[in-house]
Amino acid sequence: ELVVLVQQHFKDQPADKSLPASGILAGKHVVITAGPTREALDPVRYVSNHSSGKMGFALAEACRDAGARVTLLAGPVSLATPQGVTRINVVSARDLLAASEQAVDAGCDVFIATAAVADYRAEHIAEQKIKKQGDSLTLTLVKNPDIVASIALHAKRPFMVGFAAETQYMEEYARGKLERKQLDMIACNDVSRGDIGFASDDNAMTVFFSDRFGLEKVILEKANKHVIATRLVECLVQAGINDQNH
Amino acid sequence: ELVVLVQQHFKDQPADKSLPASGILAGKHVVITAGPTREALDPVRYVSNHSSGKMGFALAEACRDAGARVTLLAGPVSLATPQGVTRINVVSARDLLAASEQAVDAGCDVFIATAAVADYRAEHIAEQKIKKQGDSLTLTLVKNPDIVASIALHAKRPFMVGFAAETQYMEEYARGKLERKQLDMIACNDVSRGDIGFASDDNAMTVFFSDRFGLEKVILEKANKHVIATRLVECLVQAGINDQNH
Repeated sequence: ELVVLVQQHFKDQPADKSLPASGILAGKHVVITAGPTREALDPVRYVSNHSSGKMGFALAEACRDAGARVTLLAGPVSLATPQGVTRINVVSARDLLAASEQAVDAGCDVFIATAAVADYRAEHIAEQKIKKQGDSLTLTLVKNPDIVASIALHAKRPFMVGFAAETQYMEEYARGKLERKQLDMIACNDVSRGDIGFASDDNAMTVFFSDRFGLEKVILEKANKHVIATRLVECLVQAGINDQNH
Repeated sequence: ELVVLVQQHFKDQPADKSLPASGILAGKHVVITAGPTREALDPVRYVSNHSSGKMGFALAEACRDAGARVTLLAGPVSLATPQGVTRINVVSARDLLAASEQAVDAGCDVFIATAAVADYRAEHIAEQKIKKQGDSLTLTLVKNPDIVASIALHAKRPFMVGFAAETQYMEEYARGKLERKQLDMIACNDVSRGDIGFASDDNAMTVFFSDRFGLEKVILEKANKHVIATRLVECLVQAGINDQNH
């Protein structure tokens, strides 16, 4: 059903239709994942991640303002769809992977993965509500697909932007993720700081690039997520997404 | 900190101040729990339940309209606080229990528990983000306090209203919960119906009363949650909360 919706979306919007003529991302199709995913344990319970979706939605606006056509793949968040942006709602990591693959198949220049995808899901989703049992309950979770790594291996590989939320060893973890997942750029925030990230309207990030760009890391000081989003779009261009060198 | 907030709230609002003179709940203080609770696994992950909080917020409005003073203990939901209602935000089941006990200590006539409280929390909350490990992950969860059962045993016991969301054997489970938790009334919806409950604006419920009231069950047909809330307030009065017989 989701796949049909995504197919319908791209059928209805040929790539060369209604693109703004100017802007540093003019003519580009940007796909952005945003918000958390939810992994059902039973019909009423789930495992999820903290994520308001605000950073992804702010990036959708910044990319639109830079002239891109934007598709926003959104997990369960309570944010209004930015004007001029196409939103596709998803729930689980597997939903999000399917929607991402469809979007990339249809032609995508930049893939920005801000979603806080659940790493694990329940091994078995109970069909009926699990009744309270003993004093403890053991859950077996299995690994979810790695969306960013899957898309990075895609035949029509877009410029790949990842996000990382770390509570310690930020640079080490971020650079490891950049290499391991074959990303072009990664933006990292330190979620152990109480004044930024998650539900906050502000953010502060450090941006790292793939070695082949020969670019220094960029530190984005604490600012409103809309300001950070605009700076991240500038980082994209700095890495040369318009040069088709990825 | 939460306890101080709750104490401050009741200090600032003596029970006889600014109560509407009329209405079927005039002079009553109603405490309503609403929304889900979130139980942290680590700084970024949590276990939660589906609950938009809409039913609890609609009940807060209906009780206010019936002349009650209303305190709304709300888990993480994105709903505006109804005018004239005092809202206290909570995250975990243990937060909610502390806030509930404070509210009941300060004097409460009716306690309406609509919150979808997580039955279990992580045995240990990891201080740092749990890194992805093997192909599977085993979580040990331990039982959370039972808020409704705790409040029902309180020295100054309010009229207790519970909610149940069942996917099967609705009447059997609901009547069992009513007795086991020593409730006065329970409202039950069948969450296996796709057209009601959770995020929906509509609901349909069956209300059961403690045997000592000698009341038949009441079936509330599918309607907007505001209509259902008004009917539930009528059920409260039907069970005689104004007769002090609980």
